[in-house]
Amino acid sequence: MRLFATLLAGSLLAAPALSQNFDVAALRDAALKDDVAWDITEGLTTEIGPRLAGTEAEARARAWSVARLKALGFANARIEPFDMPVWVRGEEKAEILSPFPQKLVLAALGNSGATPDDGITAEIAMFPSLAALEAADRAQVQGKIVFVDHAMGRTQDGSSYGAFGGARRKGPSIASKKGAVAIVIRSIGTDFHRNPHTGVQSWEDGASPIPAAALSLPDAEQLNRIIARGKPVTMKLTLTPRNIGTRQSGNVMAEVPGRDPSAGIVLVGCHLDSWDLGTGAIDDAAGCGIVAAAAKRVMDAGKPLRTIRVVWFGAEEVGLRGGIAYRDAHLQEKHVVLAESDFGADRIYKFDSYVNPAALPVIDALATALAPIGIARGHNQARGGSDIGPLAATGVPVVSLSQDGTRYFDLHHTPDDTLDKVDRAQLAQNVAAWTAMIATIANSPVELGPVAPTGGK
Amino acid sequence: MRLFATLLAGSLLAAPALSQNFDVAALRDAALKDDVAWDITEGLTTEIGPRLAGTEAEARARAWSVARLKALGFANARIEPFDMPVWVRGEEKAEILSPFPQKLVLAALGNSGATPDDGITAEIAMFPSLAALEAADRAQVQGKIVFVDHAMGRTQDGSSYGAFGGARRKGPSIASKKGAVAIVIRSIGTDFHRNPHTGVQSWEDGASPIPAAALSLPDAEQLNRIIARGKPVTMKLTLTPRNIGTRQSGNVMAEVPGRDPSAGIVLVGCHLDSWDLGTGAIDDAAGCGIVAAAAKRVMDAGKPLRTIRVVWFGAEEVGLRGGIAYRDAHLQEKHVVLAESDFGADRIYKFDSYVNPAALPVIDALATALAPIGIARGHNQARGGSDIGPLAATGVPVVSLSQDGTRYFDLHHTPDDTLDKVDRAQLAQNVAAWTAMIATIANSPVELGPVAPTGGK
Repeated sequence: MRLFATLLAGSLLAAPALSQNFDVAALRDAALKDDVAWDITEGLTTEIGPRLAGTEAEARARAWSVARLKALGFANARIEPFDMPVWVRGEEKAEILSPFPQKLVLAALGNSGATPDDGITAEIAMFPSLAALEAADRAQVQGKIVFVDHAMGRTQDGSSYGAFGGARRKGPSIASKKGAVAIVIRSIGTDFHRNPHTGVQSWEDGASPIPAAALSLPDAEQLNRIIARGKPVTMKLTLTPRNIGTRQSGNVMAEVPGRDPSAGIVLVGCHLDSWDLGTGAIDDAAGCGIVAAAAKRVMDAGKPLRTIRVVWFGAEEVGLRGGIAYRDAHLQEKHVVLAESDFGADRIYKFDSYVNPAALPVIDALATALAPIGIARGHNQARGGSDIGPLAATGVPVVSLSQDGTRYFDLHHTPDDTLDKVDRAQLAQNVAAWTAMIATIANSPVELGPVAPTGGK
Repeated sequence: MRLFATLLAGSLLAAPALSQNFDVAALRDAALKDDVAWDITEGLTTEIGPRLAGTEAEARARAWSVARLKALGFANARIEPFDMPVWVRGEEKAEILSPFPQKLVLAALGNSGATPDDGITAEIAMFPSLAALEAADRAQVQGKIVFVDHAMGRTQDGSSYGAFGGARRKGPSIASKKGAVAIVIRSIGTDFHRNPHTGVQSWEDGASPIPAAALSLPDAEQLNRIIARGKPVTMKLTLTPRNIGTRQSGNVMAEVPGRDPSAGIVLVGCHLDSWDLGTGAIDDAAGCGIVAAAAKRVMDAGKPLRTIRVVWFGAEEVGLRGGIAYRDAHLQEKHVVLAESDFGADRIYKFDSYVNPAALPVIDALATALAPIGIARGHNQARGGSDIGPLAATGVPVVSLSQDGTRYFDLHHTPDDTLDKVDRAQLAQNVAAWTAMIATIANSPVELGPVAPTGGK
């Protein structure tokens, strides 16, 4: 209780930035020994495993999550369901027939069209970048299997994903519109294992679905070398994914009720669904573990001023469906701040915010609390990605705790996204940072808004 | 020509150990810029790819190899064919049905039996080691799918493969004899990617074939965690490999004829076949590149005293069939020394020998030539593994150039054995070492034998 006494005193007597240092620091440091985030990550990946949005596995994950959040002591643990169309993977095989017969490893992209069960055979038309495909004449593409390469490299902030991800997001529609019979891309990833990176793509207006898949990097480079020999390259491709119609997904929510119900909600989120190839450990069971563990640590220290709402969103991977459903259902509630953990489990190295300039003293206090665990202060133009993006865009303050993404795109959306990739010490550093952030903001009476809407989805 | 003039003078005037230093050093250092080994490795893995023993792909590899060795200037490039039974992989799927439904990734082991096309379903019986399976009662195993775990770690010399590989080599026969319906093992490997390690195993007398497969390490650890929850674990397993009867394999050979046909043969080998999952870059296209590049460098410096024979063995992976065929066909020829490169493409860090003590001055000279590129001298009890083992065991001198195997079992027998794993600088260091070794021994008139037979296959 000493924490809140200090806070209340501080809010009356001094700048909020100075009111809570000691106790936040103690909570932060205790969290460096956290086991709760690991237990959630281990449990979800082991007892559920892959949990593709809208499938029975994701439904099992929701039931598991409500039970776990209740067991941790949260209030109001519940599911908010929504419906969605569901696409599921089928068989996937690729084989060079000539000039050098051999199999290649690939995985269908989300919403890929299907080949006949016995596959299609066509010549490869290679483009070294998405821009080259965009610039191509229809005659270069028509009737071909397009192969789009790119030069994505690893970056700490993950910015190469935005820069090169267009090959996946837009490549299939462009290829389809130019008459390609299929498209294969170099995986949007940075590792050199025979594990392709899947991910969602959507068909633009006027683009009819064609088979669309990603080759692992070793396979993409093999195809490059084969093409470089200068002979026509023929591929047989078999992809049999299916659209199985409308199914239910949902968001899982739980709360730490605040002392003042009118003081609004500190929303901390992650996503519960995963791609189907791995067990979704770094994307995003770890995020769910981090935000729940941190919220529990603040809860166990005493009732906070504001309500803390933990949201494990559904159906993030297939188009932020959970985030959109949440925005539509909860737009009228008072959200003090939105924050999401969805970039793996490696250490947090900086944080950004989006608050009214008048509230920057709260961010100053947060910077003070985070610096001792190696976290630098960034800018005040955070946008809030992933599931919180739709609501954030309407004009809600955001805090972004940036994880080191140097190895994130080695694992993201691949079969290799498994528990062994989670570093427990770095996971606990995340919990410490989130604990400090939640304790700082949920107990500060300072309003972080208003902020201007930023638009977008 | 200066090299050989020096050598001849040296052999008449001084100890052989002292006769060739300068020129061997020059050849060695020039080889640090070698491109030939890379070109062979790149060509074989790109233009052929996987080349399972006895298949049409291995036959294409033999034709490719003869053409390449001729083009490099070697004499007597030819194929020595032999027949063998061939086993090929089919479909492979595993799925936990209860208590936590999810798919696992595995690959059949060589000579695995097959399940029906629609699989088998049984309860898992787990054993933490091969010893635990050996000690088990029949009642613990009968009707079950056995799961054998182990604790293999990475070692520079690869010794953990011998220590823990019994789970693969013997586990299937033991499980079969105790009435198991199938066996899955933790891959004999050290990486944590979703790429299982295959490898050969043979059915002992009295062990009828059962389905036998290896789980990737993340999958084996997942199965462990699931079992640790304490409920019975049911797996559905589908493996449909087939024995396709007798096919042709063969050894590819080429030579640098020596000045003195009676001076015998310096045999430098590798194996041309690979497992089917990867493209066999480190196992063992790189080895073929290394020995051929080194032999060519010595050839290009002038005609050596002794004949250098390059042998790219066939069907190593499935039971040293090429090595046995070679021994049976060439036992009566005079082999001065045998050496094989079959442990990846990372740098050589030491060498061992097996020569008559009277010939140790030649090994002294070799040690002098290798020390400047970081290679330490080892012992004089080398046995010669892999394809040269059968002939070496009859009593033929051996030199073993030991490659750093720290990451070898991350890649060995997995889909990840691809060209991108080859480090060109380390590959060239191998060529430099082999060049120095061949130049030293092929030009020394000192006999390395006789040595006692060591027995074995």
